[in-house]
Amino acid sequence: MSIIKPKTLAGFQDLLPHEAWQQRKLIDKLVEVFESFGFSTIQTPHLEYTECLIGETGGEIGKQLFRFQDNGDRDVCLRFDLTVPLARYVVQHKNELTFPFKRYAAGSCFRGERPQQGRFREFMQCDFDILGVDSAFSDAEIIQVLAASYQALGIDNFIIKVNNRKILNSFAKQVNLENKAVEFIRLLDKKDKITAEKFNQELSELGCKDCQAVADFLAISNLKELKSENKKELADLFDVLSKLPDVLKHIQLDLSLARGFGYYTGNVFEVALPEVPEVGSVGSGGRYNNLTQNFSKDLIPGVGGSVGISRVLIALQKLKQLEAKTSPATILISNLEDSLQAEVNQIASELRATGLNAEVYPEITKLKKQIQYADKKNIKYFLIFGAEEAEKGTFQLKNLQSGEQQEISEVQRVMDYVG
Amino acid sequence: MSIIKPKTLAGFQDLLPHEAWQQRKLIDKLVEVFESFGFSTIQTPHLEYTECLIGETGGEIGKQLFRFQDNGDRDVCLRFDLTVPLARYVVQHKNELTFPFKRYAAGSCFRGERPQQGRFREFMQCDFDILGVDSAFSDAEIIQVLAASYQALGIDNFIIKVNNRKILNSFAKQVNLENKAVEFIRLLDKKDKITAEKFNQELSELGCKDCQAVADFLAISNLKELKSENKKELADLFDVLSKLPDVLKHIQLDLSLARGFGYYTGNVFEVALPEVPEVGSVGSGGRYNNLTQNFSKDLIPGVGGSVGISRVLIALQKLKQLEAKTSPATILISNLEDSLQAEVNQIASELRATGLNAEVYPEITKLKKQIQYADKKNIKYFLIFGAEEAEKGTFQLKNLQSGEQQEISEVQRVMDYVG
Repeated sequence: MSIIKPKTLAGFQDLLPHEAWQQRKLIDKLVEVFESFGFSTIQTPHLEYTECLIGETGGEIGKQLFRFQDNGDRDVCLRFDLTVPLARYVVQHKNELTFPFKRYAAGSCFRGERPQQGRFREFMQCDFDILGVDSAFSDAEIIQVLAASYQALGIDNFIIKVNNRKILNSFAKQVNLENKAVEFIRLLDKKDKITAEKFNQELSELGCKDCQAVADFLAISNLKELKSENKKELADLFDVLSKLPDVLKHIQLDLSLARGFGYYTGNVFEVALPEVPEVGSVGSGGRYNNLTQNFSKDLIPGVGGSVGISRVLIALQKLKQLEAKTSPATILISNLEDSLQAEVNQIASELRATGLNAEVYPEITKLKKQIQYADKKNIKYFLIFGAEEAEKGTFQLKNLQSGEQQEISEVQRVMDYVG
Repeated sequence: MSIIKPKTLAGFQDLLPHEAWQQRKLIDKLVEVFESFGFSTIQTPHLEYTECLIGETGGEIGKQLFRFQDNGDRDVCLRFDLTVPLARYVVQHKNELTFPFKRYAAGSCFRGERPQQGRFREFMQCDFDILGVDSAFSDAEIIQVLAASYQALGIDNFIIKVNNRKILNSFAKQVNLENKAVEFIRLLDKKDKITAEKFNQELSELGCKDCQAVADFLAISNLKELKSENKKELADLFDVLSKLPDVLKHIQLDLSLARGFGYYTGNVFEVALPEVPEVGSVGSGGRYNNLTQNFSKDLIPGVGGSVGISRVLIALQKLKQLEAKTSPATILISNLEDSLQAEVNQIASELRATGLNAEVYPEITKLKKQIQYADKKNIKYFLIFGAEEAEKGTFQLKNLQSGEQQEISEVQRVMDYVG
């Protein structure tokens, strides 16, 4: 039998224990935030009928799909986000759900993009949405949850950029680019990623006669200065936010912001970290009142947000705010003698019962090897219980970080040092 | 634009909020058990190179694969379990891991089986493994973790059946079925699912001349009664377990047990719930010392266990041990007046800061509608703060389960009733 080279697909990643631990802790903290605002979790499949995900047309995302015929010749596709499946879900289960419907979900999504830093073909999405209401309050709540999320992760320096799709559409009309609104808005959205020269060039290519008007529009940083027939939604949002000073201080009007996906219909949001701009946007959201249009004539309005897990992890790494934990165990218990295994297991059980994560070395071997193992895995304490200790009725408790060692007479005393 | 019927693929499921909540709570409890024994989590992709999952031959699982060519013409496949990817992972990352390597993982796996109760095409697997040691102690630890898992889920009546593959192989030889060992062992494994008549018929068809010898073998319930040159591994396991009386009482020798997958090489385990036998096996495990053979000539021995999440949920449902919670919120705060939104948000923030999950109704609407919403979602408390209360400087706290209502003067007082 020949040997197969073990490898993952390009853009797909394995997480090592410390990376998986960091991701899990991060999601745990976010879940705590979402639940504190009353969001419930739901789950949808990773694989769906293609037509349920992309409708009849497909559009831009089409080329990036992991799409195939299954063994029953069904046209199926791995989900590329958690928002489109949500639209299917709420229409399908409308009568089983309570509206307004607030849900969160964390899970893998798949896109065949060119892999690059912080961008994977399988990536973790973490979303929260409010469906069934169209209110400035719910838009503001999504922003509140975004703010609370970054704060819960220990990030205090973040900016939430806000804008509104309707403002962009009416401005496109104002500069006579009504027929090229999609391309125009996409160009505005990538303004910060290209040079001013290139921006103006592309603007002219689109047929824009008044580049100065565009520059003036984009320079507006206070909504009051904006003349637009469509500013009410954003003004209402600012009105609610004005009463949340802790959130308001993170808010920034950015009239170039559009967000890539086409489904947004109203206010849109994007989160940036000024200390690590190279990471890109680490969260986003917006209102999508037509999302269920593929599935039902009765539209269910919605607004949602998303925390970019992979990018947040990269940002925390750069900010040196990630703990590298390779074992959940606080203490390793030695396994030295066949005749002592019963007692060793008893000790471990007693420590676990007090809430301590206690590991027993999984085979009988030399003490030195067991200490090396604890060291490598950053397990802080090592409890030695060998023939000598058994005879004396004691234990040796070693702090592997400080090197200190204590002789203790009862297992319970471990808690005095470790607790 | 025509309307698409919202639907999931056969064998794929959506989880409603109460179902997703139950699954999450279940996994949280298991994770706590795994970590208390020192297992670390890792993560591998949902999609892999097909050859990494099935080797060169494929074998039985082949027909059930979700396998396709991706956009780069790679032969790829959705993972069908978490054990084979683990083998790839430990060989690929050998130099980045500390051995003995103890990991757990919870995630979706995919098999194109005929959907039936408790069996889905996408299903949640929850595994824990110890790699790099071949010891009775580690086999016993996997059984300990299995036992602790069911106990943590509130299930006390469970049986862990144990057997050993080598005993089965040598018995096949003993009854001259050496050349049909695979078929013979598979027949033993399904013994409880078919009639005695059908069993003996299939036994004869395999060429077995001594059905009585098979019956006598299967009737053995105490390892001491078994004559087999290959009983040492199982005897050693029993030796360790004999020192764990809380675990031992759940153990049962079952010489018909083989476990479906071919990768087991030594001791095998399976968990059954006597109160709900119709659910089938709810957990399993075993030793697999050749698992990494496709990837490396240096074999890494391993032993692992798995908790069948979907089936355990069905069992807990039947045992009426599942809480149906549709909202994580303990309290809903009214949203009645535009002028009070700032205060309402302030109240919610204060309650959240005390650790309470507090939801604000996401738009301004009639009181009645807000109470109905809380009722439907089983949110226990409702805090009313309208124009009247604002003027008096009070709040009305209503217990929606008992119907009791209190007037309170400070938000902090909510904790006296809710805490």
